[in-house]
Amino acid sequence: MPATDNHSAILLIYCSDRKGLVAEITHFLSRYNGNILEIDQHVDEQNGVFFMRVQWDLDRFEMPDTSIEAQFKEEVAEPLDLNWTLHFTGQTPRMAVFVSKYAHCLHDVLARYSSGEWKVDIPLIVSNHDDLRPLAEKYEIDYHHFHVTPQTKPGVEQQQRALLREHEIDFIVLARYMQILTPDFVDCYPARIINIHHSFLPAFPGARPYHSAYRRGVKIIGATSHYVTEELDQGPIIEQDVIPVNHRHSVDDLIRKGRDLEKIVLSRAIWNHLQRKTLVFENRTIVFR
Amino acid sequence: MPATDNHSAILLIYCSDRKGLVAEITHFLSRYNGNILEIDQHVDEQNGVFFMRVQWDLDRFEMPDTSIEAQFKEEVAEPLDLNWTLHFTGQTPRMAVFVSKYAHCLHDVLARYSSGEWKVDIPLIVSNHDDLRPLAEKYEIDYHHFHVTPQTKPGVEQQQRALLREHEIDFIVLARYMQILTPDFVDCYPARIINIHHSFLPAFPGARPYHSAYRRGVKIIGATSHYVTEELDQGPIIEQDVIPVNHRHSVDDLIRKGRDLEKIVLSRAIWNHLQRKTLVFENRTIVFR
Amino acid sequence: MPATDNHSAILLIYCSDRKGLVAEITHFLSRYNGNILEIDQHVDEQNGVFFMRVQWDLDRFEMPDTSIEAQFKEEVAEPLDLNWTLHFTGQTPRMAVFVSKYAHCLHDVLARYSSGEWKVDIPLIVSNHDDLRPLAEKYEIDYHHFHVTPQTKPGVEQQQRALLREHEIDFIVLARYMQILTPDFVDCYPARIINIHHSFLPAFPGARPYHSAYRRGVKIIGATSHYVTEELDQGPIIEQDVIPVNHRHSVDDLIRKGRDLEKIVLSRAIWNHLQRKTLVFENRTIVFR
Amino acid sequence: MPATDNHSAILLIYCSDRKGLVAEITHFLSRYNGNILEIDQHVDEQNGVFFMRVQWDLDRFEMPDTSIEAQFKEEVAEPLDLNWTLHFTGQTPRMAVFVSKYAHCLHDVLARYSSGEWKVDIPLIVSNHDDLRPLAEKYEIDYHHFHVTPQTKPGVEQQQRALLREHEIDFIVLARYMQILTPDFVDCYPARIINIHHSFLPAFPGARPYHSAYRRGVKIIGATSHYVTEELDQGPIIEQDVIPVNHRHSVDDLIRKGRDLEKIVLSRAIWNHLQRKTLVFENRTIVFR
Repeated sequence: MPATDNHSAILLIYCSDRKGLVAEITHFLSRYNGNILEIDQHVDEQNGVFFMRVQWDLDRFEMPDTSIEAQFKEEVAEPLDLNWTLHFTGQTPRMAVFVSKYAHCLHDVLARYSSGEWKVDIPLIVSNHDDLRPLAEKYEIDYHHFHVTPQTKPGVEQQQRALLREHEIDFIVLARYMQILTPDFVDCYPARIINIHHSFLPAFPGARPYHSAYRRGVKIIGATSHYVTEELDQGPIIEQDVIPVNHRHSVDDLIRKGRDLEKIVLSRAIWNHLQRKTLVFENRTIVFR
Repeated sequence: MPATDNHSAILLIYCSDRKGLVAEITHFLSRYNGNILEIDQHVDEQNGVFFMRVQWDLDRFEMPDTSIEAQFKEEVAEPLDLNWTLHFTGQTPRMAVFVSKYAHCLHDVLARYSSGEWKVDIPLIVSNHDDLRPLAEKYEIDYHHFHVTPQTKPGVEQQQRALLREHEIDFIVLARYMQILTPDFVDCYPARIINIHHSFLPAFPGARPYHSAYRRGVKIIGATSHYVTEELDQGPIIEQDVIPVNHRHSVDDLIRKGRDLEKIVLSRAIWNHLQRKTLVFENRTIVFR
Repeated sequence: MPATDNHSAILLIYCSDRKGLVAEITHFLSRYNGNILEIDQHVDEQNGVFFMRVQWDLDRFEMPDTSIEAQFKEEVAEPLDLNWTLHFTGQTPRMAVFVSKYAHCLHDVLARYSSGEWKVDIPLIVSNHDDLRPLAEKYEIDYHHFHVTPQTKPGVEQQQRALLREHEIDFIVLARYMQILTPDFVDCYPARIINIHHSFLPAFPGARPYHSAYRRGVKIIGATSHYVTEELDQGPIIEQDVIPVNHRHSVDDLIRKGRDLEKIVLSRAIWNHLQRKTLVFENRTIVFR
Repeated sequence: MPATDNHSAILLIYCSDRKGLVAEITHFLSRYNGNILEIDQHVDEQNGVFFMRVQWDLDRFEMPDTSIEAQFKEEVAEPLDLNWTLHFTGQTPRMAVFVSKYAHCLHDVLARYSSGEWKVDIPLIVSNHDDLRPLAEKYEIDYHHFHVTPQTKPGVEQQQRALLREHEIDFIVLARYMQILTPDFVDCYPARIINIHHSFLPAFPGARPYHSAYRRGVKIIGATSHYVTEELDQGPIIEQDVIPVNHRHSVDDLIRKGRDLEKIVLSRAIWNHLQRKTLVFENRTIVFR
């Protein structure tokens, strides 16, 4: 996987399925001497939809980066009526992290960030509590604390959105942020807010899933990372994982074991998002491999 | 694990937690020269309940097998007010299998049965369809076909219960049996009817869980084996397992992959039941290891 | 996944990586009005090798099935110097199963076969013991017993190869066959003999891996399905899976738990082979998804 | 699990199996009014060895903590010839961390440490490089850098051992420490040095296991935490875990994915060690549950 490639481009495409789509799209790339690094394509036969992710080397591509969007639109996307987005691996996305009091996901995000595992900038951390400010300070990241009540929430979200615009934030990670965002807020970042929920969705949505899991006597617990939509814990799933538990585990044990799942599942989802491997279609996330 | 031991006994015990329980119980065994093979004991601190499974060698135990029940009751269980059951590994339980049209779980059960993996007798298979009769005949097991409609169900269940009594059936396995048993029937076999549900409960209870899983876009599917209670798919869980899926999988792929989970999870649950490793407490199954 | 499609074709391709390969290949298909159902393509950058699997619908493909091979060779494969194979999903491969005394993998294979899960014919079962003949007879499949000793092995293999030719066998599954095939035999079926080894290779190759796993005190055991090559247990891996074990498990427990792994892993490997998802390159198996 | 209990004691016991061991041991506890919180006991029948972990509440135990060791020895351990250790949950063990250049395991350890997940003190970090000093400083832990060459190693180890004694270190965690300790050093800390190896041992011991895994084409990679013994990567295994990989993964992908395994597996092993759940017998680790 050309993860470290700094000069390639990615097209994420879907449209109703027809003959010749792959040929048309790849012909465009070869016409300008583009070397395809990876194609992942398939047809969802139940819905008759064509999906494709293609990444190609820009090094000897005979078109300036700035012309690709317009040229692809004119030569391919409009004639074929494609839904598509274009991305450049040379660009570094800007990510904001929202937290409350739990540190484990933020620890994991910052450890990867500081060791250069991800190509991302994290200019700010937002929280409804002040608890994790010392952790943010260890990594010298701006920490913004907003006191949130049902009354202040609309005003707070206005301020948060201004802050996000000011910092040119591309996407938001809710790293165990214990507040529900308003539909207005969510609408500003479609498929660009990543949440981690501490259960194997759709089992145990909402509050206190480990307590519910304990009461139900499940033998496996899970964590789910998804894009946030207006309906709580109903957004398109990006990543899930599970671990076995047994009757000896108390609720506290589930919480402790679950933390490891949560942080790993959230970080995998962020990785997939950063790699432009994700595409949302009808409340399901296509995660290209 | 002394799985093949043919002359040992097992006590499954729970009661409210107090000091000295283990000492009292194990002292009874050592008083009569019993050699403990395995103890698994723990306290559920949230509920203040003591759980214990103890297995001991009967070979030099200085008490006839037939006296153990009365003696343990008098010396230990009544003074300590225990909930308990006693089992002898030398006895071979009798199991009935209920099926509909899907063959994969029955195949798996019969393969294990015929190769002697389980110490169990399977004198009969019951079905609401005739499709799997040829498979039953391959293994020379009586196959009883009952045509079930909402109208005939009560009468059919009467006949089935007579049949089960006649064959001295100890427990029932629903190997993808597509009928809901009436509460009357279920009450006759408390914690002795094992079902396999083709989802990771409590996600996707009821009908067509793979279709629901597909629509929800989950990244992992599961199967759950549980004891049947009056509420559909709500009984105490014995065993669960999962496998990853992705956006390329159609519903048919989920069904195909799920079959492997279903048969393995069901067979593990049967194994645990046969090993007397299971104890039901407040709709949760303790599965001793 | 168009698993049930009966009139499509599959190309498996690899070659040294260059620009324009995808465009050339897909252009050939679109030239004759072929509808691509699925492409999986990637470049192994460490080795500079291009890999591709493409499946397309033959229903309105403007070329007779019988001409595709020659036409693709002339127009694409020779000019581009591709390594390639062509397959038609409408053809039903013929598979032979080799067994010794263990029944579990054969049970699993026959259960899938008899329920139509796989598109395959199994005209014969070969064994060095007579133990599993009754199982073969249940499914009315010819069972050939050869007594094998070091002295008789060359002669026996001659007879086996004649038998395989006579039945027009496409590929062989060693379902816990406890004999080592000679290099001569193996050479006749390159990447067409599938073995199941009862360990997580490369750990514990050779005999009695569960005993070795027990002694080493591993916390997880595995099973590995691979194509057979001249070197024992060194062939390209198709599929692996694992399950956790603990200190309470005796060797017999490992063997019992391992059986479930072995049969599932072997059957998954067979499925991948049947779907033409596998391609061997330098002792590694590309398993397209 | 009474993980947070601050006033309980734990006995870890093994001996050759005989009748009455459990009764004798538990009778000792009940004699002094000890409330047993948890027993995990089993017999390794292949070796005829009895294993037991018992934890009891000290709150109303009618014996001063300081007398338990001598009293248990006299009344039980010597008469029965037990191998045993006694631990108090109220004591906080002291742990040293050895690192080289990789940060991910140290990040994970320090995140848990700083959030109070573990009851442990970490007074010092030792390294053969200076790279991770800034990370140690974030958490205000002494960082000791020793330049190690084959020539200086014996002298360096002398200094390290002095440092460990001075800080009264109970056990050592090698968090991707890329140096092999001498047998002299290892002998000072029997079953008290925990290493993480970045493969599924016994597969791929030694250097560069991800490169070997890539070349072998395995479909699953793993990580193994074990107690260090004189033989490299041969010590008793505490914890293992795995994740699936495929042909699209480069060596760099394996390394990236493996980091998540390594840190989680190492931290689980540390947890088990801290909970006094581990007991080493003949190069295998019993991990009580």
